Amino acid sequence: MALINEHYQKLAAGYLFPEIGRRVREYEKAHPGSGIIRMGIGDVTQPLAPSVIRAFHAGVEEMASAETFKGYGPEQGYDFLREAIAERSFRSRGAAITADDIFISDGSKCDTGNIQEIFGLQSKVAICDPVYPVYADTTVMAGKTGHAAANGYYQGIIYLPCTAENHFIPALPEEVPDLIFLCYPNNPTGTVAPREELKKWVDYALEHKSIILFDAAYEAFIRDPEIPHSIYEIAGAEKVAIEFRSLSKTAGFTGTRLAYTVIPGALMAYDSQGNEVQVRKLWNRRHTTKFNGVSYPVQKAAAAVFTEEGQREVEATIGYYMENAALIRESLAACGYTVYGGENAPYIWVQTRDGMKSWDFFDLLLEKAHVVGTPGSGFGPSGEGYFRFSAFATREKVLEAMDRIYHL
Amino acid sequence: MALINEHYQKLAAGYLFPEIGRRVREYEKAHPGSGIIRMGIGDVTQPLAPSVIRAFHAGVEEMASAETFKGYGPEQGYDFLREAIAERSFRSRGAAITADDIFISDGSKCDTGNIQEIFGLQSKVAICDPVYPVYADTTVMAGKTGHAAANGYYQGIIYLPCTAENHFIPALPEEVPDLIFLCYPNNPTGTVAPREELKKWVDYALEHKSIILFDAAYEAFIRDPEIPHSIYEIAGAEKVAIEFRSLSKTAGFTGTRLAYTVIPGALMAYDSQGNEVQVRKLWNRRHTTKFNGVSYPVQKAAAAVFTEEGQREVEATIGYYMENAALIRESLAACGYTVYGGENAPYIWVQTRDGMKSWDFFDLLLEKAHVVGTPGSGFGPSGEGYFRFSAFATREKVLEAMDRIYHL
Repeated sequence: MALINEHYQKLAAGYLFPEIGRRVREYEKAHPGSGIIRMGIGDVTQPLAPSVIRAFHAGVEEMASAETFKGYGPEQGYDFLREAIAERSFRSRGAAITADDIFISDGSKCDTGNIQEIFGLQSKVAICDPVYPVYADTTVMAGKTGHAAANGYYQGIIYLPCTAENHFIPALPEEVPDLIFLCYPNNPTGTVAPREELKKWVDYALEHKSIILFDAAYEAFIRDPEIPHSIYEIAGAEKVAIEFRSLSKTAGFTGTRLAYTVIPGALMAYDSQGNEVQVRKLWNRRHTTKFNGVSYPVQKAAAAVFTEEGQREVEATIGYYMENAALIRESLAACGYTVYGGENAPYIWVQTRDGMKSWDFFDLLLEKAHVVGTPGSGFGPSGEGYFRFSAFATREKVLEAMDRIYHL
Repeated sequence: MALINEHYQKLAAGYLFPEIGRRVREYEKAHPGSGIIRMGIGDVTQPLAPSVIRAFHAGVEEMASAETFKGYGPEQGYDFLREAIAERSFRSRGAAITADDIFISDGSKCDTGNIQEIFGLQSKVAICDPVYPVYADTTVMAGKTGHAAANGYYQGIIYLPCTAENHFIPALPEEVPDLIFLCYPNNPTGTVAPREELKKWVDYALEHKSIILFDAAYEAFIRDPEIPHSIYEIAGAEKVAIEFRSLSKTAGFTGTRLAYTVIPGALMAYDSQGNEVQVRKLWNRRHTTKFNGVSYPVQKAAAAVFTEEGQREVEATIGYYMENAALIRESLAACGYTVYGGENAPYIWVQTRDGMKSWDFFDLLLEKAHVVGTPGSGFGPSGEGYFRFSAFATREKVLEAMDRIYHL
């Protein structure tokens, strides 16, 4: 008899974003033509950069003749892309990352979930609260937790509350975790981690032989030159950290799909006898056995992002989104809301008024302003009473949405 | 302390195809310009069809302007593609599959590995021997097995030997499995399963509430009109089978990446109390949480495969490969080898002579004929003494390779 993985039944609710999509579709069906403005899922709106489009077409054209056709590529990604990334994203910032450390994939969502497979089921996982829900959901699916308590916390996860009181930067946990998910610039709070904050975590991980799973999907939105873009800018991080990067927000690849995971050769984990095992080798086994590489034309398109021209173009689009972020911050503050983030991140984290619950605020905005945002409680119990706006809409829609909220 | 998943240490060897790649690269380095002909990994050589290229370019072009830009799509794939597949691949053959049953992904390798996550760790898995190594490797990684015995069999897997004696069609196992991997047309033996053979397995699964994981990656190569292309052509299969399909070989997508998994709404698994749980719903949760959909231009390109024009074009290329297969069969038979497969599948399964071991034959062909094939033992212990040739090389290379082997 085929038995299910019963850990799935512990999952408290549907995955957040499909649930938002469902509510919006239902509302639209009942109220056609209501002109809903989406600032919820955090999807980008601006087209791919011209140099990226040119490279994408060129890659497609190579598939049209036998002489230039590409079949199976290296599962880890083509060297032309891995080299460009190592140079542009890391070595140019003083981080000694090589092409061999870089694994190209189709998304950071996949990678942050899949990475857990190479670690023991007994691993204790630490997760910020609130944060991107995939870390907890995949930890539950893997069977590393018990059931959810009344507050939504899963038994067995070490939660790191991030609140206005601690400026959304968590304290080191009392119970020592084996794996520590950190996300900076943070989704959803828009917080960034200064150098000394990252150093605190790297030193902690070095002391306890823990591994930091560092999600840097939003590093391109950092404006402050003092804030590190990569955890490998911190000495010793190459021994204790895996970093996740994505072109989704950086270069508008949410529908094109390309991300990468960095696992330095010096990073070790341990078997039950305490012997060191190279984590990169373990991930390489997983990646080559369960993945077949990213579409060749997509890799060609991605490589264009790392050229001088591509960098100029994507930087211009990021600038546009960050002007949106400033507009949202200022408008909501003018409405009397307390706002966080949006200065080095595309997310603005807003406190609801009069203790309104996040999903009630979601429904209010949907029904009265026809604006869709993301309920803070969907990111964890400490997100209750907060709401996330993304800066990825068009300027016109951002202005319209802010106007509607102002007149609520 | 970060502990590894120690099940990885049970894996007997590197994944087969990277190992072949490694040996070939080493040989080439030592003997540059030796003119190696690759018939090993089973990678295609013919370009994407003209209608597919046109649709691919059009998809890329949509990403170039804000009006037509596509961000996150549905994780399960766009309806235009799911509808086209349901109609062309299933309903046209009398199988009642709907778009809702179809999950678009970036590869069947990913899907056949990942599908196991939604089933309980205690599930007993049955796997043919020899077969595509991913089924066993991912079963080991998931922790469903013990160590490998001396013959390469992992403790806890129910092996189904496929030998010349049983015409490479396995008998029903004595111990009842919960999950049964079947692959027809078979990789590596090139065997196909007639209707009554599939019916035997469907009836068995219905009786025991087992689930068949049916890998139909090579269905497009079936020439015999009596052979089913889909397991859903068998009555009752929609209650007991998941089917995996891929455009990799069908339409030359090995470097473009698109596959799909079919999970009918009627398919149920069970919780430990014996309650029915819809498998499609479970997979939907996994797919939406750990995957972000296939690149939009790739989905556009894939949809072109399912048009009249696309079908004509890919059928012509498949015809070309099947002429290669016939040439390989006949040439090797003329050399005195016993050959199987290659009539309804792109693989020719050859018995080595004088009991030569598969890897010895690999080295012999590489060193003396500069031809790369796949050692049968890499697919499981019953593959020892066999060798797989793929029909995907160009005509010129196939003729040259056969000539070299003839003059060995």
